[in-house]
Amino acid sequence: MYELTMNLRTDKKTPLYEQIYSFIKHDIQSGRIACGEKLPSTRALAKHLEVSRSTAALAYEQLLSEGFIESVPCRGFFAAQIEELYHLRPAKAKEEKEKADGKAYRYDFTPNGVDLTGFPYNVWRKLSRDILMDDRTELFRSGDSRGEYGFRNAVCNYLYQARGVNCTPGQVIIGAGSDYLFMLLSMILGTDHKIAFEDPTYKQAYRLAQSLSYETVPVTMDKSGMEVTRLSGTDADIAYVTPSHQYPTGIVMPMKRRLELLKWAGEKDGRYIVEDDYDSEFRYKGKPIPALQGYDRMEKVIYLGTFSKSIAPAIRLSYMVLPNPLLRIYQERHRFVNSTVSKVDQMIVQRFLEDGYYERHLNKMRALYKNRHDTLIDALRPLSGICRVFGEHAGVHLLLAFENGKTEEELILRAKERGIKVYGLSDYRILKDPAARPTVLLGYANLAEEQIKDAAGILAECWG
Amino acid sequence: MYELTMNLRTDKKTPLYEQIYSFIKHDIQSGRIACGEKLPSTRALAKHLEVSRSTAALAYEQLLSEGFIESVPCRGFFAAQIEELYHLRPAKAKEEKEKADGKAYRYDFTPNGVDLTGFPYNVWRKLSRDILMDDRTELFRSGDSRGEYGFRNAVCNYLYQARGVNCTPGQVIIGAGSDYLFMLLSMILGTDHKIAFEDPTYKQAYRLAQSLSYETVPVTMDKSGMEVTRLSGTDADIAYVTPSHQYPTGIVMPMKRRLELLKWAGEKDGRYIVEDDYDSEFRYKGKPIPALQGYDRMEKVIYLGTFSKSIAPAIRLSYMVLPNPLLRIYQERHRFVNSTVSKVDQMIVQRFLEDGYYERHLNKMRALYKNRHDTLIDALRPLSGICRVFGEHAGVHLLLAFENGKTEEELILRAKERGIKVYGLSDYRILKDPAARPTVLLGYANLAEEQIKDAAGILAECWG
Repeated sequence: MYELTMNLRTDKKTPLYEQIYSFIKHDIQSGRIACGEKLPSTRALAKHLEVSRSTAALAYEQLLSEGFIESVPCRGFFAAQIEELYHLRPAKAKEEKEKADGKAYRYDFTPNGVDLTGFPYNVWRKLSRDILMDDRTELFRSGDSRGEYGFRNAVCNYLYQARGVNCTPGQVIIGAGSDYLFMLLSMILGTDHKIAFEDPTYKQAYRLAQSLSYETVPVTMDKSGMEVTRLSGTDADIAYVTPSHQYPTGIVMPMKRRLELLKWAGEKDGRYIVEDDYDSEFRYKGKPIPALQGYDRMEKVIYLGTFSKSIAPAIRLSYMVLPNPLLRIYQERHRFVNSTVSKVDQMIVQRFLEDGYYERHLNKMRALYKNRHDTLIDALRPLSGICRVFGEHAGVHLLLAFENGKTEEELILRAKERGIKVYGLSDYRILKDPAARPTVLLGYANLAEEQIKDAAGILAECWG
Repeated sequence: MYELTMNLRTDKKTPLYEQIYSFIKHDIQSGRIACGEKLPSTRALAKHLEVSRSTAALAYEQLLSEGFIESVPCRGFFAAQIEELYHLRPAKAKEEKEKADGKAYRYDFTPNGVDLTGFPYNVWRKLSRDILMDDRTELFRSGDSRGEYGFRNAVCNYLYQARGVNCTPGQVIIGAGSDYLFMLLSMILGTDHKIAFEDPTYKQAYRLAQSLSYETVPVTMDKSGMEVTRLSGTDADIAYVTPSHQYPTGIVMPMKRRLELLKWAGEKDGRYIVEDDYDSEFRYKGKPIPALQGYDRMEKVIYLGTFSKSIAPAIRLSYMVLPNPLLRIYQERHRFVNSTVSKVDQMIVQRFLEDGYYERHLNKMRALYKNRHDTLIDALRPLSGICRVFGEHAGVHLLLAFENGKTEEELILRAKERGIKVYGLSDYRILKDPAARPTVLLGYANLAEEQIKDAAGILAECWG
């Protein structure tokens, strides 16, 4: 009978049963113990190795549970068949380089910038410290899948006061970013819909809709935004719009067009409007226009907003306000999906809202951005002969439409040669339009006034 | 010509332009200014109201942008048509009651419990304080959509050492919870697949698959877990399994079955195995078995794991390891989807892993749970005549299969009458099986040893 002879070391930290286990496992893997070979009984093994029977038994148990040996009732233990193919490989410690985008540029006029010099670090630290102070285990239990009631209530109040959004905390769903909320929404709506997008549009949402396998259709815009007459001409049943500040053109949709849009939605069951109010916080002229959702009497508007732009991109916190028919579907079928935002983060932002920090922060940022906005417009004066500014007075970017015969590519390339990154409107178009006037976007959120002056000066040179 | 006579108050805080705006808006809404009626020019209005022209202009601009008036070139301003229908409603402050689950129970043997008395609050506070200490704005910029490289690298190392998972940081995707990662995975795989689930199974994943409109098929289990022969009999191309500790039956899939499963996946292109390693951290006997993923040489296994069970449910942090073919699809088509986890949280957990806190925490929890596990098994001795314990030695719950002629409903009801919540295995079955032996789950993570003894004593009474 096969005898297992191994050198057990009692001085080693590894327990005996594990040494036995490893030895046998290795012999089976290496083939020294052939597949199907009978192993000694635990009693025999224990006697032979001078270990307790339970030690031998524990080793066999481990081998059994890993399938290296098999137990045949009344006959004993046998080496199992292990395909060489599947032996555990050592991990390859292959490193990966993280690509360095735009490192080459001196100035980047990204339209998606957020200034973080204004971020209230101290307040944030204080709030998170306070919240982590009380050891309430509640804080670390799983919570309401929509987000905590208190936080949803705070968001609800903020949205009513600041945006004229009309809802109860029950309609608010908190999520880790707008992308996630869109994914959740697609579960609620189902993907058997056709979504109309403004053209040009916010490509992130457009790409997401396609990744979620929605049919999509671009709808052209006039100076008031998405043309509802054309929308009616499509078989789209969902319209994705950014009325408070169309991205990227900056058009503010006037009330009349908003009402037309709501009318369109009301004309058929199952039609909905997704209102992405992504940067409505920043408006430098007049009063902000109430959200489309506030005028919706037929439960047609799905309202999306985020703290990622108004506080910081790394704060993964967005909110969605569902009309009641969709809320019911969510409650019945999708409420089991767990929340994506930690309670700690929810409570920090709740306090941030309720204690007035958010309002102060917004005022500060508004002032900061307005100065950069004004500085940029001022610094662009020398270009007034060859281009027209539009989409200004709101958000964190504006646009320049050119009439100097240069193509968008040329304009972007010339700027690049001087170390300045600007963005072509074509990148935001769904349908390429060769006849379209060359237009570039200039985002000013990430540039100090001095930098804006310097950069604009250079642009004036290379474009003039 | 229509004259606007209003009482402007210079003592009020509201700026003049806003008072004018409100007055005209109100008159248009109330109909006092009829639709289409011509308004005075800004010059005339300014003169009439004795305000600066820019004040009048600003008021008109606001009215224009809100669509209450329209500007007709060379003719002037006219009141627009506003449908009564869409006037802004005041928000209804309807309160909602949050439902109180299981408040009635004295003891709840939930199998999804996580003990939070062991949560390292002080460490957590310290780490988050340290991380928020340095004002690096980097912390609040948007980061890599897969999660920060440093964190993915830490997870990668942990998974190799603790679970034998074989991957590079590039294959790791961090997400806010396993539900989200499953949603992301469904975008990568597409929904045109049939997913085989163990029966009984982890209902959360099963319901999610159905919400994502996947076809699903239940596959029965023998003592080794999902029966691969039966799996082959279905047209499923994805198998969702929990090999390290089947949920809810607690079966540990032996190596042999794992290899059969990998073989099944290797037999056809496009076949994949989703390995949900949800609670492999907790095992009280022998060594943990390396993950299925570690034996996969054909890039067939999608590995899922989470910190929500091992640290705290409210820590919304899970990870997914993609095989390279799927990673390429993700990189090409879905990488634009923003991360759902804040950098701060990622860095806290990274430090938690790298500084050895996690290992210590796991050892502590393992010891804690093992004691509760042993206490429960001990306390259930009196029931040994009428039921059999199985699925023990791992995770945070065990099962009792009854042979005393009582139905599952009876058992649950009797316990309920004594204020104890236990869970019936039927709730986890996809296909109801009337012939199945009555079985209840007892989770012990949320109960102290004393409570376990007391509760088990009561159960012995009401079931015996």
